Amino acid sequence: MSRTIVEPPRLHAALRQSSPLVQCLTNAVVSNFTANVLLAVGAAPAMVDIPGEAGTFAGVAGAVLINLGTPREEQRVAMREAVSAASSAGTPWVLDPVAIGLLSVRTALAEELLALRPTVIRGNASEIRALAGAGAGGRGVDAVDDVESAGGAAAALARRSGGIVAVSGAVDLVTDGSSTVRVPGGDELLTRVTGGGCALGAVIGAFVATGRARGVDDLEAVAAAHAVYSAAAERSAAAASGPGTFAARFLDELAVTGR
Amino acid sequence: MSRTIVEPPRLHAALRQSSPLVQCLTNAVVSNFTANVLLAVGAAPAMVDIPGEAGTFAGVAGAVLINLGTPREEQRVAMREAVSAASSAGTPWVLDPVAIGLLSVRTALAEELLALRPTVIRGNASEIRALAGAGAGGRGVDAVDDVESAGGAAAALARRSGGIVAVSGAVDLVTDGSSTVRVPGGDELLTRVTGGGCALGAVIGAFVATGRARGVDDLEAVAAAHAVYSAAAERSAAAASGPGTFAARFLDELAVTGR
Amino acid sequence: MSRTIVEPPRLHAALRQSSPLVQCLTNAVVSNFTANVLLAVGAAPAMVDIPGEAGTFAGVAGAVLINLGTPREEQRVAMREAVSAASSAGTPWVLDPVAIGLLSVRTALAEELLALRPTVIRGNASEIRALAGAGAGGRGVDAVDDVESAGGAAAALARRSGGIVAVSGAVDLVTDGSSTVRVPGGDELLTRVTGGGCALGAVIGAFVATGRARGVDDLEAVAAAHAVYSAAAERSAAAASGPGTFAARFLDELAVTGR
Repeated sequence: MSRTIVEPPRLHAALRQSSPLVQCLTNAVVSNFTANVLLAVGAAPAMVDIPGEAGTFAGVAGAVLINLGTPREEQRVAMREAVSAASSAGTPWVLDPVAIGLLSVRTALAEELLALRPTVIRGNASEIRALAGAGAGGRGVDAVDDVESAGGAAAALARRSGGIVAVSGAVDLVTDGSSTVRVPGGDELLTRVTGGGCALGAVIGAFVATGRARGVDDLEAVAAAHAVYSAAAERSAAAASGPGTFAARFLDELAVTGR
Repeated sequence: MSRTIVEPPRLHAALRQSSPLVQCLTNAVVSNFTANVLLAVGAAPAMVDIPGEAGTFAGVAGAVLINLGTPREEQRVAMREAVSAASSAGTPWVLDPVAIGLLSVRTALAEELLALRPTVIRGNASEIRALAGAGAGGRGVDAVDDVESAGGAAAALARRSGGIVAVSGAVDLVTDGSSTVRVPGGDELLTRVTGGGCALGAVIGAFVATGRARGVDDLEAVAAAHAVYSAAAERSAAAASGPGTFAARFLDELAVTGR
Repeated sequence: MSRTIVEPPRLHAALRQSSPLVQCLTNAVVSNFTANVLLAVGAAPAMVDIPGEAGTFAGVAGAVLINLGTPREEQRVAMREAVSAASSAGTPWVLDPVAIGLLSVRTALAEELLALRPTVIRGNASEIRALAGAGAGGRGVDAVDDVESAGGAAAALARRSGGIVAVSGAVDLVTDGSSTVRVPGGDELLTRVTGGGCALGAVIGAFVATGRARGVDDLEAVAAAHAVYSAAAERSAAAASGPGTFAARFLDELAVTGR
């Protein structure tokens, strides 16, 4: 079954009004960009990722992001705390299994967290295939598979986790295991800025938190996050002369939508 | 008693000439932006924050910033080292108690460090109230209290610590417990860039170091830092189309003042 | 013997086609900028820096960067793993001994790693002199010595390590201990953006990996990296109004060369 998404700008406007608190346990490379993206879309970032605090905060956050890009030992402990507290509190949480496959520490952690049923799993085609047990992973953080080739793996993974799976690429694919939404658009420049995909994981959290408070189902909320993100990328690419000015403009464009 | 501040651009010019070395033990999200802000104002950033080095460096730095935004265990050890060495050497140090209140690790550390008499404490109204024992803290990193409501707590905290307390908001408030300076201006866009407040803590350190070498008292130096920062924010907001271009312009504007 | 460098844009074009995977174990302040610089030049960054993964990845990476700017304990373990695996696999690796001299942890680590014969050592004049045993180090991350004063130390260090040594400054100097290349150009604004030198270390890794696959010797590849980097800095400075817009433009300019 294929579906179309419902009014992403409207959900974005609601997000901006409610300003959901999104806790990010994310990689060291993209934490600054991720926080700025959340601020630009109208959410409130909180990068609380140490043991003894991560669980406490997950109990009050609107959504939690677990991104495995640079999973130091202390952060891994905090991730387990945060996921446990989020599960208990019914807080939606997003898993981004960055570069799993070849690398053993994060691959084992991704499998452990998958068993705890993430609300949303997002990644590129190679990461999703690897997590579903259908591929060996990508080339570092880059996908070597295309999105459509990961459609079956994404749907299987969604059914197994009971959540949503989102695959980023030229056309993004979002599925709950039975329904699938495709989100076209975006711009190749987004892949030339580090954290383009990682920050989307945080935005997904903000949209799901907002959607739940409004009776919008998670599949639609995740697709709306992709649509708003892609549209901002297109507009900023038109005004940019390269990846540096694109990144600055992208924040500007995210900040003007949803008003 | 209310006072007016004395010639912030002149102190900034002196800062640019002396280029004080500001050691930052700060959170992972804003370390890049903080270093760029220090370079832009004309100071020399040094993010030395590991045990075995932090104390050594605090002995030669012009000022030390302790920001509790992501206080990993290893960094907490380094913070204690740096504060101890700064105290012994008479080096001014700034405490930024980010998001204390709900979160136990940083709240305990803030109280421990408060007893060591920071030269300057800076934060938003909720953080200052929480550290003074007059409030429960904010919503993540966001204040839920306004600046004026924190005036009494700020003055009490200044008297208790023997230092300066600076509260950021629409109008900033700087007090030594008896005299109070208010610094208007700035721009709301500064709150839409992560690290806007955190980087100000580092700039305060640079101004205090410069002021001390010129016989300017700490209260005036802290107020001057706020004034220079706010003025740069206003000018860059005028040239920006959103938070992304604002952040780039803000560094440009900090770099042209004080010349 | 003095040499001139051969067609840096041509090597850059080859780099862009092959997109070498550059693993960075670098400091927390500059990891984002470094990844963005690598993406802009056309390489593929991978910031894999935890024990249990760093060695695995070094076996498949095209080059490895070891930057000692914020060497936390866990990262130091990962650095040893990565260097050991790179050496076994014949993967070129770059050592950037940031701010050695005064600071004991990184100084000891730099000496330990030097004994493992880095393919390239890059730093400012004070760092190179300190590593060669000819100076006490700089002022934090800033050089207090000029490039030419470090020429003898650089050549001695190159002969000792068996690799290339690159010294950054107004005119960069690259030597293998017998031949020396000087690369003029660049712009002072590059020193007003944190990570300007650190990211160059990663770009050097990308150029060496590319050069080796084409029969270009390491000395020429390192000099080409400096030349491409300096040329992009000059062009971006011309279009910038300060360090903030410069940094964005610099990424744009790196992205248009080599096409």
